[in-house]
Amino acid sequence: MSWEENVRRVEPYVPGEQPKRKDIIKLNTNECPYPPAPGVTAALERMDPASFRLYPDPDAKMLVHALAESYGLRDEQVFVGVGSDDVLAMIFLTFFQSEKPILFPDITYSFYDVWANLYRIPYEQIPVDEEFRIRFEDYRKENGGIVIANPNAPTGIAVGKKQMKDFIAEHRDVIVVVDEAYVDFGGESCVDLINEFDNLIVVQTFSKSRSMAGMRIGYAMADEKLIRYLLDVKFAMNSYTMNRPTLELGVESVRDEAYFKETTAKIVATRERMKTELEGIGFTCTDSKANFLFAAHEKIPAAVMFERLKEKGIYVRYWNKPRIQNRMRITIGTDEQMDVLVKAMKEIIGEEGSFDAKVSVEWR
Amino acid sequence: MSWEENVRRVEPYVPGEQPKRKDIIKLNTNECPYPPAPGVTAALERMDPASFRLYPDPDAKMLVHALAESYGLRDEQVFVGVGSDDVLAMIFLTFFQSEKPILFPDITYSFYDVWANLYRIPYEQIPVDEEFRIRFEDYRKENGGIVIANPNAPTGIAVGKKQMKDFIAEHRDVIVVVDEAYVDFGGESCVDLINEFDNLIVVQTFSKSRSMAGMRIGYAMADEKLIRYLLDVKFAMNSYTMNRPTLELGVESVRDEAYFKETTAKIVATRERMKTELEGIGFTCTDSKANFLFAAHEKIPAAVMFERLKEKGIYVRYWNKPRIQNRMRITIGTDEQMDVLVKAMKEIIGEEGSFDAKVSVEWR
Repeated sequence: MSWEENVRRVEPYVPGEQPKRKDIIKLNTNECPYPPAPGVTAALERMDPASFRLYPDPDAKMLVHALAESYGLRDEQVFVGVGSDDVLAMIFLTFFQSEKPILFPDITYSFYDVWANLYRIPYEQIPVDEEFRIRFEDYRKENGGIVIANPNAPTGIAVGKKQMKDFIAEHRDVIVVVDEAYVDFGGESCVDLINEFDNLIVVQTFSKSRSMAGMRIGYAMADEKLIRYLLDVKFAMNSYTMNRPTLELGVESVRDEAYFKETTAKIVATRERMKTELEGIGFTCTDSKANFLFAAHEKIPAAVMFERLKEKGIYVRYWNKPRIQNRMRITIGTDEQMDVLVKAMKEIIGEEGSFDAKVSVEWR
Repeated sequence: MSWEENVRRVEPYVPGEQPKRKDIIKLNTNECPYPPAPGVTAALERMDPASFRLYPDPDAKMLVHALAESYGLRDEQVFVGVGSDDVLAMIFLTFFQSEKPILFPDITYSFYDVWANLYRIPYEQIPVDEEFRIRFEDYRKENGGIVIANPNAPTGIAVGKKQMKDFIAEHRDVIVVVDEAYVDFGGESCVDLINEFDNLIVVQTFSKSRSMAGMRIGYAMADEKLIRYLLDVKFAMNSYTMNRPTLELGVESVRDEAYFKETTAKIVATRERMKTELEGIGFTCTDSKANFLFAAHEKIPAAVMFERLKEKGIYVRYWNKPRIQNRMRITIGTDEQMDVLVKAMKEIIGEEGSFDAKVSVEWR
C-alpha cells in the first residue's frame, strides 16, 4: 500500500494568464482599469502594521456590517470570504450534498464543474440556446441545486429580475445560487429577493466593479439560516479567512457609493462605444451587461486573432472549447486601451484577411 | 423535499475570544507581543493601492521563493495558504481519502477533529500519557494518515528530531503531517527530513513567531509531488487565496532573519523566567517549548483562576474538557504583561485560598 492511493485527484481550474511584462494591455481577467476608491488609499496610509500581530476579527464584523448597511440588509444576512471563488466553493460544499445532480448552463463560469468535481457533487450542464441564452424551461427536472451566473460569463448576457424571480419560485425545494459577479455593469440584482426566498443565495465580488481583485473579497447574501450554515462550515475550516488589511480597506470601498457609480458608469459607456466600433469592423457581439464583450469575427478565427493580439502585447481571453471556440472575451479597459485594441485589430484584419485570401487562391 | 436535507451540518471550531476592549492583556490566542519585522512597516508604506485592481499572482511566487530560500529548499517544495488552518484543511481534504482512520493525539490542536468531521474522514484519537507525552508506540496500527503537532498544543511538549525521524520512517506508507506552528520557540524542526521522506509534510505559520496572525499566512513544506497534489486542490478551490498585501509583507518578514531570532529569543527567555515564577506560587507547568505555558495550580481550580483573571482584564485560555480541565494555557507576552499577570495571580491565590479554606471549614 502507498499513501498515493488516498490522494484526492482533481482537474484544477486554469486562471487567465498573469503576464510578468509591465507594458501589456491586460484585457484577459475582467479586472477594472480604474484604481480603488480614494478612501482605500487613505485607509492604507493610516494602517498600523503593529496591529498585524493580532488575529483579525473572525466574524469580519466591520466588513459584514458595511455591506449589510449598503444593501439595506441585516448583518446576519451577509457572509464574506476570500473572493467570490472562496464563497462559492464553500456554498458548493455546504449546500450540495444531494445524490441528485446540480444544474448549471453548459456555457458559464468554468469553475462550477471544477468545484463539483472537487467535492464529488453530481452535476448536469444544461445547454444554452444558439444565441447563448439560458433555457430556463430545461431546468424543470429533479436536481440537487441550481447555479446561474447573471449576467452569465463569458457571454455577458443578463436575465431580468422578473424572470429570475419566477425561476427561483419554481425551484423552492432546492438552493438556487445566483452569481452576480458582473451585475454592477447593467444587470438587475436579485438581492432584495432574499427576503422573500429562503432558498436563494446571491453572490457578489469586489474584484470587478470595486477594483479590488488583488484584495480578494467576495460575499454572499441570503436568508439568515443559510448564512448560519455557511458560517458553520467556514468555522470548521478556517476561523480567520479575512486578514486585517482586507477588512479595513474593504469597508472604505463599500462606503464610497459615488465613486463606485462613477467608475461602473464609465466602463458601461466604454463598453457600448466599443461594441459599436467592433461591429463596424466585422465583429458580432452578444448584448453584454458585464465589463467585457464576447465577440466573434466574420473572417478571422478567434484563435488567430487571440495569438496575433498577444504578439502585439494585448491579452484577451480565449477558450478552445465547443460552441465558443470562435469567440474572444475582451475585458473593458480604459478608452485609451480600447483605442489601441481596435487599431491592432484593424491591422490584423488587414494582414490576415489578405493572407487568408491568398492562401485560398493558392489552394483552390 | 426541502433543500435542508442537502446541507452539510458540522460542529464548528470555537476560536479564542477576541475582546473588543482595548485595555485587555490578551494571553489567550498565542499571538506574539512584539510587532512584525521593521521591513513589513516599510513595505506597507510603499504599497501602491492602485495595484489592488489587479489579481494577485495565483502562484504566490515571491512568497514561495522567499520561504524556499530561507529554508534552503526549492520553490517546488513549498506551498502557501491563508494561515496554517487553511493549509492544514487543504491537506486533510487532499491526502486523507482512506477508509481507515487517521490518527492524532487525544490532547492536541482542537481543529484536527473538526476538519476530519467536515470532510467525513474517519479518525481515532490516541491518548497521550499521564504527563501529556505522545505515545508513539500506540500509532502502530492500520491507519489512513497521521497528524502530530510538535511542539504539541496546548501542552507545549516537544519531541526531538531523532524520535520524529524514526516515527516517520515507521509509517512510510501513509502521509505524516507535522504541525510545527510553535517550533521556533525551542523545538527541533523536521523540515530537512522532507528531502528524505516523500510521505512527510511539515506545516508552519506566520501567526506566532513572525507576529503576523492578522495577515493570515501559513505554509507547508514537502516533497515536490505532494506539493503538486496540494496545488491541484487549491486551484480547484480558489486560484487566488493570497492577496497582494500578504505576498508583499510576508516576503519582508521572511527576509529579516535577525529580527526573527531576536524576538523569538526574547519570548523564550520570558517563558523560562515565568515558568520559575509560576512554580514559585504553586503552579505545575509542562516543559513547554512553545510561546505559552500550560499550567495547573495546586489549590485554585483552573476554571476559577480563568474567570478571576478575566475580571481583572487578563485573558488566558481554558478548556472544560476531560484530562485538561484543571489547566490554563497562558500565552507568553512582554515581561511587563507577565509581571501584571503574576501580581494578579498572587491576589487571586490569596483571596480564593482563604475563601476556599473558609468554605471548607463551614461545610465540614
